[in-house]
Amino acid sequence: MVDDASQPPPHRHHLLVRYGETDQMGRVHHANYLLYFEEARTGMMRELGASYAGLERRGVGLPVRKADLRYRQAALYEEELVVETRITRVGPASVTFEYRCLREADGGLVATGSTELACIDLADGRLIHLPADMARVFRGAQGSAE
Amino acid sequence: MVDDASQPPPHRHHLLVRYGETDQMGRVHHANYLLYFEEARTGMMRELGASYAGLERRGVGLPVRKADLRYRQAALYEEELVVETRITRVGPASVTFEYRCLREADGGLVATGSTELACIDLADGRLIHLPADMARVFRGAQGSAE
Amino acid sequence: MVDDASQPPPHRHHLLVRYGETDQMGRVHHANYLLYFEEARTGMMRELGASYAGLERRGVGLPVRKADLRYRQAALYEEELVVETRITRVGPASVTFEYRCLREADGGLVATGSTELACIDLADGRLIHLPADMARVFRGAQGSAE
Amino acid sequence: MVDDASQPPPHRHHLLVRYGETDQMGRVHHANYLLYFEEARTGMMRELGASYAGLERRGVGLPVRKADLRYRQAALYEEELVVETRITRVGPASVTFEYRCLREADGGLVATGSTELACIDLADGRLIHLPADMARVFRGAQGSAE
Repeated sequence: MVDDASQPPPHRHHLLVRYGETDQMGRVHHANYLLYFEEARTGMMRELGASYAGLERRGVGLPVRKADLRYRQAALYEEELVVETRITRVGPASVTFEYRCLREADGGLVATGSTELACIDLADGRLIHLPADMARVFRGAQGSAE
Repeated sequence: MVDDASQPPPHRHHLLVRYGETDQMGRVHHANYLLYFEEARTGMMRELGASYAGLERRGVGLPVRKADLRYRQAALYEEELVVETRITRVGPASVTFEYRCLREADGGLVATGSTELACIDLADGRLIHLPADMARVFRGAQGSAE
Repeated sequence: MVDDASQPPPHRHHLLVRYGETDQMGRVHHANYLLYFEEARTGMMRELGASYAGLERRGVGLPVRKADLRYRQAALYEEELVVETRITRVGPASVTFEYRCLREADGGLVATGSTELACIDLADGRLIHLPADMARVFRGAQGSAE
Repeated sequence: MVDDASQPPPHRHHLLVRYGETDQMGRVHHANYLLYFEEARTGMMRELGASYAGLERRGVGLPVRKADLRYRQAALYEEELVVETRITRVGPASVTFEYRCLREADGGLVATGSTELACIDLADGRLIHLPADMARVFRGAQGSAE
């Protein structure tokens, strides 16, 4: 059983800013953070043994239903960024991830955000319960007892 | 003088979903709505005689500081969408836009959201007051008296 | 019957450069022209009564097999561009489009290119013949007799 | 001095396909390969001690002037890809890179291509000679004697 008092450390995902991700203001265009968060989140799932690609092969999808972003400092081309990801809520048919995007060099906070994902049947788009194994993995990562 | 009681109608921007904006779930990838909102917002500014390109030529930028999105229904390839944009807050050094993205065919609600933009000096990134003419235009569009 | 001597005029598609399409060099990032060409090509198909969305609903896809691009002049944020599209070759299981991307304001040549599309069965990815109606439409647009 | 007979091995860059890079055909959208090639090319430059970010800080840019792509097999979400990059030509004011994108799992060829980059003064966009140190690095990597 997991100790409620101890929140597990976040998953850490490293990435390097691509040139095509900058805009003429000379910084990462704000829409790209949703791609960074997605890459971090699916990297976390893969590491937890719950690959998102595998989930879709079972006919289940996790589209984003809600997203919040706050931009703190500009990120620049070729900067290495770290995205720290935590699972903060597991509902019957949804899961919420929170993100902190930091500059690797000095730990400066670049952006924060969260995304809430709904669980759907890919065949018809209907909302369905999270598969039991997936819910278990998410709850384990969240650090709460089942 | 503008009557406080009457909120002006939102700016309406039309767009057609591009193939490259879909993902393998067969719907518009969620990050693209930030591009749609940006296109709608700058279209509105242009129409108000306050082009964002012109603002940058004066050395002033409006990077996004905060964004919230809620995804209601999937949008599909080649669907025509309408983004309704309103200005909901004009601060000394910021402006907030709200968006409703609808399917043109049946008015179905696809996504909603808001973005808060900070006003900066492009030379050094420092927060600065909105230029007076810009603030006036934004307040006029917001429907409040100056 | 179509006169072989007269090449039909190209299809003209208008678009406005989005902020998110620029990069830190202050110009449209070169990858975006493939999105512009795709938008122009599918706009042309729609106008010819042969919507690409409709084709996919019949289980047939036209993935890009080959692309060539030449960048002539930088395109800037908020510039209006026109993409002129022609069909230059219709094979049994492929079709080739050529593009000229011009600045609307002064007709300056921004980029040129071509894409060759293969016709596939979306169920298994196998190469198949272009559906007869599609081949007829493409040949008509190409300006050659059948 | 470098032996002309021995072509150096290509630079190898690894990447994982992002969800947002797929389209509704269930494969990587064709425009993204230009981003993959760019990431591979700039990774190679960094490794050669000739960072592209550093070059721009010196006021010199290398915009893409010409690109060719051939798509061989579809790449799928979460597949690991390897991009092999070689420098095939170094001109007075240009450099050409060639790419082979392979599936890591089985070595299957996904896409090939090349990009020709022009050397420009970022201040005014004029074509200029490659800086001498840059030309030397590129020629060294190309495997030809200077």
